[in-house]
Amino acid sequence: MKINDTAPNLSQRAAMMPASPIRKLVPLADAAKEKGIKVYHLNIGQPDIPTPDSFWNAVKQYKDRVLAYGHSEGLPFYRMNLAKYYRNVGYDVDPNDIVVTTAGSEAIIFCMMAICEHGDEMIVPEPFYTNYNGFSVMSGVKLAPLTCRAEDGFHLPPISEVEKLINDRTKGIIYCSPNNPTGTVFYREELQGLADLARKHDLFLLADEVYREFVYEGEHTSIFELDGISDRAIILDSISKRYSACGARVGCVVTKNRKLVDTLTRFGQARLCPPTLEQAGANAVLSEGEDYFREVMGEYEKRRNVTYDILMQIPDVVCRKPSGAFYIMAKLPVDDADKFAAWLLTDFNYENETTMIAPGSGFYATPNTGLDEVRIAYVLNVDDLKKAMNILKLGIEAYNRR
Amino acid sequence: MKINDTAPNLSQRAAMMPASPIRKLVPLADAAKEKGIKVYHLNIGQPDIPTPDSFWNAVKQYKDRVLAYGHSEGLPFYRMNLAKYYRNVGYDVDPNDIVVTTAGSEAIIFCMMAICEHGDEMIVPEPFYTNYNGFSVMSGVKLAPLTCRAEDGFHLPPISEVEKLINDRTKGIIYCSPNNPTGTVFYREELQGLADLARKHDLFLLADEVYREFVYEGEHTSIFELDGISDRAIILDSISKRYSACGARVGCVVTKNRKLVDTLTRFGQARLCPPTLEQAGANAVLSEGEDYFREVMGEYEKRRNVTYDILMQIPDVVCRKPSGAFYIMAKLPVDDADKFAAWLLTDFNYENETTMIAPGSGFYATPNTGLDEVRIAYVLNVDDLKKAMNILKLGIEAYNRR
Repeated sequence: MKINDTAPNLSQRAAMMPASPIRKLVPLADAAKEKGIKVYHLNIGQPDIPTPDSFWNAVKQYKDRVLAYGHSEGLPFYRMNLAKYYRNVGYDVDPNDIVVTTAGSEAIIFCMMAICEHGDEMIVPEPFYTNYNGFSVMSGVKLAPLTCRAEDGFHLPPISEVEKLINDRTKGIIYCSPNNPTGTVFYREELQGLADLARKHDLFLLADEVYREFVYEGEHTSIFELDGISDRAIILDSISKRYSACGARVGCVVTKNRKLVDTLTRFGQARLCPPTLEQAGANAVLSEGEDYFREVMGEYEKRRNVTYDILMQIPDVVCRKPSGAFYIMAKLPVDDADKFAAWLLTDFNYENETTMIAPGSGFYATPNTGLDEVRIAYVLNVDDLKKAMNILKLGIEAYNRR
Repeated sequence: MKINDTAPNLSQRAAMMPASPIRKLVPLADAAKEKGIKVYHLNIGQPDIPTPDSFWNAVKQYKDRVLAYGHSEGLPFYRMNLAKYYRNVGYDVDPNDIVVTTAGSEAIIFCMMAICEHGDEMIVPEPFYTNYNGFSVMSGVKLAPLTCRAEDGFHLPPISEVEKLINDRTKGIIYCSPNNPTGTVFYREELQGLADLARKHDLFLLADEVYREFVYEGEHTSIFELDGISDRAIILDSISKRYSACGARVGCVVTKNRKLVDTLTRFGQARLCPPTLEQAGANAVLSEGEDYFREVMGEYEKRRNVTYDILMQIPDVVCRKPSGAFYIMAKLPVDDADKFAAWLLTDFNYENETTMIAPGSGFYATPNTGLDEVRIAYVLNVDDLKKAMNILKLGIEAYNRR
C-alpha cells in the first residue's frame, strides 16, 4: 500500500493553492539544460544587476557573534533609515509608520488578513502579480479582478467599471504601480480616482510600489501623494528589485493608520522577526544615492527598448511600450501561450539555446483570460536579451509552422 | 479629526491576534533600562551562545555578487545536507521529503493551512509555544487545548482525555518535544499513544522538534521513530535554537507524505523563497559535529541546574525538574503572574538590576489557566543566571510583602 493511499486528506485551500506560472515550467527548463541547451530566463524577475557592495560589506562586517532575533516590527536603526529614504523621495513617513516584513510577500499577506475577514473581497486590476492568487488562498480573501487590456496599454478602465465591482464584502483595492506584469505606470488621475472611490465606499487602498524608481517615461505617483486618504493608504514595499537583492527577503508596510501598525506588529510578533543579517544589509544599501539609480535605470531602459523593438518586429504582436518596472506583457500570435512556453523548452532551440517566458493566464483571475499573452522580464544584459528575444521571434515562427 | 476616527475597520482576526506574552512587556523593560536598570532577559528564548564560526564563514565567503531568489522549496544543496543530518540522527529522510521554510513559524502556518479548512481544529497539549495562538488566528484553525499540569511535570494526561477532544473538525494533533515552554521530554509511550490515536481517527500528527538535541535526562523520541504513521507524520524544525541562529529565519517541514510536500512547495512558490544568504549559513553549520553539541548541551545542563536549584529555594514554587529544551515552567507563589512580571520591571530592582520573565497565561488556550505560572528561559551564562534568579527570588518576597 502506498503511503498516500492511507493518509488523511489535505484541505481545500491546499488544493486551491496555484502552482506559480513563473516557476511551474522550471522542470522543463531543467530537462532542457540537461540536454545541453542554454535557457535564457525571461520568465522570472530575477535581475542580473549585482547587489550593491554596500550590502555585502555590511553583511561581511556584521559584528555580533550571536545572530539574534530582532524586533518583530523590524530593527530600529533600519526603520529609522527607511523613514529617511521615504522622506527623501518626498513622502511624510516616520519610523513608527513602518513595519518591516519578510519580503513584500509577507507585507501583502499580513495586510490582507488585517483588513479582511475570511471570505471578504479585494479589487485588483488584472493582469496582476501572479502570487496575489496564492496570498488570496492563504488569507481566504477573494480577489475581484478589474480587467485591463493590452490595447489600452493596461491602463485602468473608467472608474465606473471599478465601482461596479464593489459589494458588501469589498474591503480594499490593491494595485501595483509601476506594474508587474505589464510595466504600466498608472497616471496620477487614475490613482486619485481609486482614492476617491476608496473614501466614498470606506475601503482601504493598498499600493505595491516595489518598482518606484523604475520609471522611463512620465512620473511615478505614490499613494502617499494622493489626496484625502492618509487614513487608509498603505504602501507595500520590498528591497528585492530596487537593490537587486531578491534573496534577502526584506520588505515593509508603510501606513499612517496607527491601528493597522499596531495590528501588523502583533502579526509580526507571532512569527518573531524578519531576517536579522539581511536587514543589516538592507540598511546599508539605503545609502545608495542618485548615481546608483541613474546607472541601473539607464541599463533597464536600454533593455526595455531592445525587448520592445524586437517584439515589434514580430507580426501581430499586441502591446504598448511600457513606461516602468522591467516587464512587458504582450499578446503573441500563438493559439495557447501555456503550450507555446512549454514547447519552447521541450521542442525548440536555436543553435542550442532557447528562451523561457511566463504564460499570461496565471496573471489573471478571470478564467480563460490572457491565454495568448506572456510576460517577458527584461532582466538580462542587452547582448543576452537580444539573443533571447530573437529566439522568441524564431520560436513563434517555427511554432506556427508546425 | 484624527486619522483613525475616519479609517475603515480592521478585521476580527486583526482584533483576535494576540500580543506575544514573551514580548508584550518589552516597553516596560525599555523604560526600566532608560532609568539605568539592568534587565536580565529570561523572558525570551534568545541564547547567548555564539552562532558557530562555520555559519559566519559561509556568509562572509558567499561568492555570488547577486543575492538572488533561491528555489521555493529551499536551496538544493541545503536540502541534500539537511537530509544527511536527519539520517545521521537516525531518521529515514530523503531531500525530497524536505521543504525549507522561513523559520519554524512558517513551517507551522503552512502545515496548518495545508491540513485544515478555516474553522477546523488541531489538538495541542498546553501550555504550548505561545505563538501557536498567532498561527491559529492567521490560519483560522481552532486550537483544542489538552491541559497538562505542573504537578505531573507537564506530561500528557491519559490518552482517553486526548480522545475526548476529537470531533468532526479535528484534523491533527500538534506537540512540541522537548517542550517549549515546559522543558518536558515526552516519553516514547506517550507519543506512540498519540500516533495510534492519529491513525485511529485519521488525523495528521505534527511534531515540533526544534529542541531535538537539548536533552539532559532520558531520550528524545522523534515522530519519525514512531510506528505506523509514516503517511501522516510531520516534523516541524528550525535551526534557530540548535545552532543559536534565531535571526536567520531558516526552518523546514519534513514528511514522507508526497501530497503534502507538493502542497507546501506551492505555498512556498507564493512567497518565492526563504532567505538565500542565511540558507548558505545554515548549510555550513550542518557540519558541526558531536563536539559542538556536547559543549553546548553541557553548558545548558549547568544552567538548568542553577535555575532549578534556586527555584527550589523559593517556598511554594511548583515544578518538576525539566529534562530538555531550555525552559522551565513553574507555578510561583504570587496572585497574578502577569502583574508580577510587570511589577518586576516597573517597581522592583536589586542593586539596580531586575529580571524579566514571561507570564504563563499566554501559553494556554484555556481561559484563566496558568495565571500563577511563568516561563523562565535559561539562556544566560551561569553567573548572570544566578544573579537573575536571585533577583526573582527576592522579587517574589518583596512582591508578597507589598
